Amino acid sequence: MRREQKFWGWGEPGAGPELPDHAPALLRERLGVSGAVVAEPVGLADVRLPPSAATAELRSGLERAVGADHVRDDHDARVLRAAGKSYLDLLALRAGECAAAPDLVVAPGDHAEVQAVLHACAEGGAAVIPFGGGTSVVGGVAPERGRWDVAVSLDLGRLDAVLGVDVRSRTARGQAGLRLPELDHALAPHGLRLGHAPQSYEWATVGGCAATRSAGQASTGFGRFDELVVALRCATPAGELATLGAPASAAGPDLCELMLGSEGTLGAITELTLRVRPVPAEQRYEAWLFPSFEAGCEALRALVQAELAPDVARLSDEEETRTTLVLAGEGGAVRRAGGAALRALGYRPGALLIAGWEGEPDDVGRRRGAAARRLRGGGVVPLGRGAGESWRAARFTGPHLRDALLDRGVLAETLETATGWSGLPALHRAVRDAVAGALAATPPVVGCHVSHLYPDGASLYFTVLARQDADDPAGQWRAAKRAAGDAVTAAGATITHHHGVGRDHRTWLEAEHGRLGLEVLRALKQRCDPAGIMNPGKLLP
Amino acid sequence: MRREQKFWGWGEPGAGPELPDHAPALLRERLGVSGAVVAEPVGLADVRLPPSAATAELRSGLERAVGADHVRDDHDARVLRAAGKSYLDLLALRAGECAAAPDLVVAPGDHAEVQAVLHACAEGGAAVIPFGGGTSVVGGVAPERGRWDVAVSLDLGRLDAVLGVDVRSRTARGQAGLRLPELDHALAPHGLRLGHAPQSYEWATVGGCAATRSAGQASTGFGRFDELVVALRCATPAGELATLGAPASAAGPDLCELMLGSEGTLGAITELTLRVRPVPAEQRYEAWLFPSFEAGCEALRALVQAELAPDVARLSDEEETRTTLVLAGEGGAVRRAGGAALRALGYRPGALLIAGWEGEPDDVGRRRGAAARRLRGGGVVPLGRGAGESWRAARFTGPHLRDALLDRGVLAETLETATGWSGLPALHRAVRDAVAGALAATPPVVGCHVSHLYPDGASLYFTVLARQDADDPAGQWRAAKRAAGDAVTAAGATITHHHGVGRDHRTWLEAEHGRLGLEVLRALKQRCDPAGIMNPGKLLP
Repeated sequence: MRREQKFWGWGEPGAGPELPDHAPALLRERLGVSGAVVAEPVGLADVRLPPSAATAELRSGLERAVGADHVRDDHDARVLRAAGKSYLDLLALRAGECAAAPDLVVAPGDHAEVQAVLHACAEGGAAVIPFGGGTSVVGGVAPERGRWDVAVSLDLGRLDAVLGVDVRSRTARGQAGLRLPELDHALAPHGLRLGHAPQSYEWATVGGCAATRSAGQASTGFGRFDELVVALRCATPAGELATLGAPASAAGPDLCELMLGSEGTLGAITELTLRVRPVPAEQRYEAWLFPSFEAGCEALRALVQAELAPDVARLSDEEETRTTLVLAGEGGAVRRAGGAALRALGYRPGALLIAGWEGEPDDVGRRRGAAARRLRGGGVVPLGRGAGESWRAARFTGPHLRDALLDRGVLAETLETATGWSGLPALHRAVRDAVAGALAATPPVVGCHVSHLYPDGASLYFTVLARQDADDPAGQWRAAKRAAGDAVTAAGATITHHHGVGRDHRTWLEAEHGRLGLEVLRALKQRCDPAGIMNPGKLLP
Repeated sequence: MRREQKFWGWGEPGAGPELPDHAPALLRERLGVSGAVVAEPVGLADVRLPPSAATAELRSGLERAVGADHVRDDHDARVLRAAGKSYLDLLALRAGECAAAPDLVVAPGDHAEVQAVLHACAEGGAAVIPFGGGTSVVGGVAPERGRWDVAVSLDLGRLDAVLGVDVRSRTARGQAGLRLPELDHALAPHGLRLGHAPQSYEWATVGGCAATRSAGQASTGFGRFDELVVALRCATPAGELATLGAPASAAGPDLCELMLGSEGTLGAITELTLRVRPVPAEQRYEAWLFPSFEAGCEALRALVQAELAPDVARLSDEEETRTTLVLAGEGGAVRRAGGAALRALGYRPGALLIAGWEGEPDDVGRRRGAAARRLRGGGVVPLGRGAGESWRAARFTGPHLRDALLDRGVLAETLETATGWSGLPALHRAVRDAVAGALAATPPVVGCHVSHLYPDGASLYFTVLARQDADDPAGQWRAAKRAAGDAVTAAGATITHHHGVGRDHRTWLEAEHGRLGLEVLRALKQRCDPAGIMNPGKLLP
């Protein structure tokens, strides 16, 4: 049996870290919550499900496609495929509400079986919701039925084979359900790895990363997931769509770029060929403190435009820096490293940069040295490796902490966007102010960091914490989300840099792509999925 | 009046260089042609045109759209927009055959006027052939009428404005008809340039580069044109399609990647936002000689996978190296530099690498030094900067020489493809043998070079020379083209790395994209261009 996350939160039961020691005090001071656990999730057996609406015909069609063992409609299977990890998903599941659970969970073993499942569902009239790692934070895998009465979760967990490694071309071919650590593990004997590490690393699948245009923490250096994809194979209701595995092509529009980001609405990605890279001999992480977020942004812009960006670059604004310093506590590496210097310089608190370099020691030394020379001057304080390594050690813990915050009655949400360097300061202010305004009744802490650098711009990643409105937590979240999305689109920025669209961003898709752009996406869907069975209600408004 | 190329060949009349001194002897020895001029092109006035089929209604509709001054149907205007620079285009025009000339040439001045032209043509029932630099070598701008009686050339030459330069974000926005040197010239006062230099640099437009997924000679270092595009604005018969100018986005499929490579079949690109870069303080070009093409490929693979590829990397196979050395003559820089060494080593003739680095002196020094350290050993002979600079000085002359070869009764054609490193040697052999087989009656010289490097593979660029079949030159070319295309697709390589599809590659589009992929492209066209007026017969088979 493959490892499974708990149904109401992140990771396996008991696997996550606890809140840092200083968190309860911070929550009390800043959010006005007690810091005590006020809401525990229900047990798995207590989750309420409607009976499965699947007909016997559909079930037997699916059993013919994948074998009877791989078609399930038991309570646990349905609950575990009922949602991703968005705030709304977690609110509902923690409360034991699971009205939208799929009627069947079907687990094909290869491309042909996926194709057969799609045919059976098209024939039987059922919505199909592809399910990879289940880590969507935007409602991407929460079943909506569209015009169908039945929803089938297309569980891609059995598509976990590495199909080939071409060491010479530095590419690997694998099935879509491979989790990121599984692929890296399989590549290790070749001295290779994918090197894609989103916060969801432990659970995310390669197919899911492709379907949602994932970015990893080191994507500044190694490229976004879409840049790692050489070729895709997809099963759609209209048949197979496979792209050529050439390093580049001028043969018309790039169809791979159509499936990337399609979020299961056109078909299911079943196999991928990916660019891989050597396992780095050195990984060096460290922290720096800038006098201000604005000064830090300017320094990062100069670095990336000089082709000297660190592979991982994460610059917190003043609010996020303050929170980080408080949570680290007096004994934390950041405070130990820089406390005296910071006090002397009068930084209150300044802007914290985590920078990471990975590669051959010579290369890391050169790049890091050149970057450091540029950073110095301008009042930048190096905080050393301890603080960088602390961040690295905790790099996948964010979603665990969210569970602990939800236990304590805290609204905890993240959102991300990107724009050109010229527009970045205004975008930062606009989103922060919009969210703060929408949550004025429960004054939030809105921190932000630059998470990815490009020569022409950067992404902004916001973390929002507020006292949860116990009467209408979903309504409270919706108001904040609406304000944020409207502010993002008014600023001409993208509605999502790497979380994807799913259910939570679809309202703004037209702002991103325009009227005709949306019609083009609809035409594409019509061609690949004429009946409209694939992931209804996602991506397209 | 904007500069115009001569109608029957490359560049302005008299602008091109002559054949090198040693060429006639080479042509005699290797191809069995005399080396004397045997076929001169007809004069412009002697080109035969059918009368314009445009109706008065269409004409007046177009005059309302763009003003009467910008709607032309005179002989010269029609001939100059009747074709690009493909082998078949030139064969016909040199002979004065111009049956397919557009009935009208219409030159709008901005996006709104382009949109108005498309509406007038949709209403009047006329095919629209977007015309940028007119440099297509695959028949991309030669009018085909599809189901229409009338063809209108959409001349984008008046869309030549730079709309804005964002120095901070290092982006520039401009109209689609801007020629590459015009944009670079406008950027120079900011210390910036686009840095995209295909062989067609002097004439190609930014819109054309986008519509055909151009690669430049330095794209190994600076990225393909598609990687330089931040955002596009297009006029389609169904209205405006504009993509968001964010540095990255996860908001669904990438619609920009749909318009890139669309070759005017979906609409006309009218404006672009492009990534630009600093004018390099140093440009260093040099040559190296490898014992064999295979050894050179392996060395380049190691370089690019170590992130040490030169910005320009062009490795000739033994045949192309031999031709290059002969044409350079005893006095040529390559021979001067390495003659003795080569003879001593017994290279006959080995494989010539031209490598170019551009950037800040420190950066060029470091990258070049690291690459040179890796190249040394393995019997590589440095030939020095003279040979590299000779190549650079002549980097845009290839198309001029083709005209001189056509004058002498020589079939002269180039074709390009790309595949993974593992498949490269077999692809090289397969294409070479296929072309040689198809042209067995007039034994050809088939040279090849690796033109662009990627971590996962490389492109191959073939040059084919043969004695022209005077009775059926087009049939001779078609047989060779068919053999090459079949060999490329049988090897699983792309049908075009950067020339585009146009008319000459459309036969193989299904081999590249598959049956459903082709249907998806048709569905996109149906949505953007329901009547099918945009560049009929191009791209889609």
